[in-house]
Amino acid sequence: MSIVLDGTKIAGEIRGSVRDEAKLLKQKTGIVPGLAVVLVGDDPASEIYVGRKAKACEEAGFASRQYRLAAATGEGELLNLIDVLNKDSLIHGILVQLPLPVHISTKKVIAAIDPLKDVDGFHPTNVGRMVIGLPAYVPATPLGILRLIEHYQIPTEGKNVVVLGRSNIVGTPISVLLSRKAYPGNATVTLCHSKSAGLAEITLRADIIIAALGATHFIKADMVKDGAVVIDVGMNQIPDSSAKKGTRLVGDVDFVHVSPKCSFITPVPGGVGPMTVCALMINTWEAYNRSIYG
Amino acid sequence: MSIVLDGTKIAGEIRGSVRDEAKLLKQKTGIVPGLAVVLVGDDPASEIYVGRKAKACEEAGFASRQYRLAAATGEGELLNLIDVLNKDSLIHGILVQLPLPVHISTKKVIAAIDPLKDVDGFHPTNVGRMVIGLPAYVPATPLGILRLIEHYQIPTEGKNVVVLGRSNIVGTPISVLLSRKAYPGNATVTLCHSKSAGLAEITLRADIIIAALGATHFIKADMVKDGAVVIDVGMNQIPDSSAKKGTRLVGDVDFVHVSPKCSFITPVPGGVGPMTVCALMINTWEAYNRSIYG
Repeated sequence: MSIVLDGTKIAGEIRGSVRDEAKLLKQKTGIVPGLAVVLVGDDPASEIYVGRKAKACEEAGFASRQYRLAAATGEGELLNLIDVLNKDSLIHGILVQLPLPVHISTKKVIAAIDPLKDVDGFHPTNVGRMVIGLPAYVPATPLGILRLIEHYQIPTEGKNVVVLGRSNIVGTPISVLLSRKAYPGNATVTLCHSKSAGLAEITLRADIIIAALGATHFIKADMVKDGAVVIDVGMNQIPDSSAKKGTRLVGDVDFVHVSPKCSFITPVPGGVGPMTVCALMINTWEAYNRSIYG
Repeated sequence: MSIVLDGTKIAGEIRGSVRDEAKLLKQKTGIVPGLAVVLVGDDPASEIYVGRKAKACEEAGFASRQYRLAAATGEGELLNLIDVLNKDSLIHGILVQLPLPVHISTKKVIAAIDPLKDVDGFHPTNVGRMVIGLPAYVPATPLGILRLIEHYQIPTEGKNVVVLGRSNIVGTPISVLLSRKAYPGNATVTLCHSKSAGLAEITLRADIIIAALGATHFIKADMVKDGAVVIDVGMNQIPDSSAKKGTRLVGDVDFVHVSPKCSFITPVPGGVGPMTVCALMINTWEAYNRSIYG
């Protein structure tokens, strides 16, 4: 019998407690944590994510400012905006929605954000601090996964964890985090990717599978051992004529057939997704509190 | 039949070419790359390492300055010295020999080094840049291992790599490096440590084993599959009455019994050790050239 990890519920609880703290803060000091969200161009998926983040900010009682720039915006103009936001004392967190148009260097833009305001945790300074075990903003999706694991008290020490996908946003950081000397962590982590051979053999040995490939229903029942924990980071839109908008969101895991084998599994939607938005609130709250950089 | 990876020879070749380049540079400009090595206290092992690094610097035609501070040196005094070295235009690389006395915060000291002069690659900025794939100083031991793998053209793509030991100096960075989309890399890497269960089963599946535990002869023949590549990072001193100084250097691998099973194996001494010293020369040369930070 598998327990479905309820990301929507847990994220709601965490957001509720952040909201309460923010309310207290406002009563005492008149200050609210401020998040600037920058969107360049009009990618429909990015629009949705930015909308969700703005809504979560409002709900948490944060001040959210959205900067919507045309797709043709130059790199210099974007860097100027970041410079202004870095200096803006009402803004505690800065988030530049990715992907950026190809004529803008993502690495340059990320490096331009003040590490103290880098609530996405993508700046080299935050990545490095996280890897060597210093306090750091942890990227939203890995942080959301850690909070889910903590909430359900899923054991990780000495467990075989298999991470599929080596992105800087999910796969690589979560593999580092689950290897470190802490809870959740102390796991034996294998990081797999497009060049890995014999994937089914590797996933079959996993106590915990974290699927972050972006491939619809890639993880099938015959790739998962009985009792495994399965965390699905996939957010894939597939055609669905019965849906109002003609598409439907599915994960990297074939939930229907995999879930009966699992001890714990995240659904899509309602698993990692809401935790990711909630993790951004946590980071913005910490940015306001200076709890990372003291 | 196993090929013994000759770290002494390869390191000698690389150091020779760095020396030639440095000589040309001096003829043209009168400038030599400068490395500052800071040693606090009188740990005998640290003395040996610092001595080797100074000698390698001399041989390469670099300017090496040693700062030997008493064990009782305060943290503030050490941070002041680093500040002076950060501003010294004749010093291109700064290395603080670890471990530091317990009354000094290692993390604070590492963070105080200018990332552009951080030839050990331990500063959060360098670690983060390395992890996300930006040019960075790679810590000496992992860089030495990469150079050995490259020299012997050992295939890594799609191979199962098992790294034993999760230190910030060796295990964690080499596991990240061998996972990335490049050569050497594109491997499926499993990072093991003291909390890992069933180690022998894991190492038996490895195409490449990197042993960095600091445990004498931990890797036995029955933990290694036929044809595996074994890289031994161990530097353990064991008693040996037949040796002049009463001890002998051995690795984490039981070389005598393991080597007949391997396709490639590094000896101890003469494997990873000399490559590590040589990697520091490479990083100092790159620090002079600004080839990392442009």
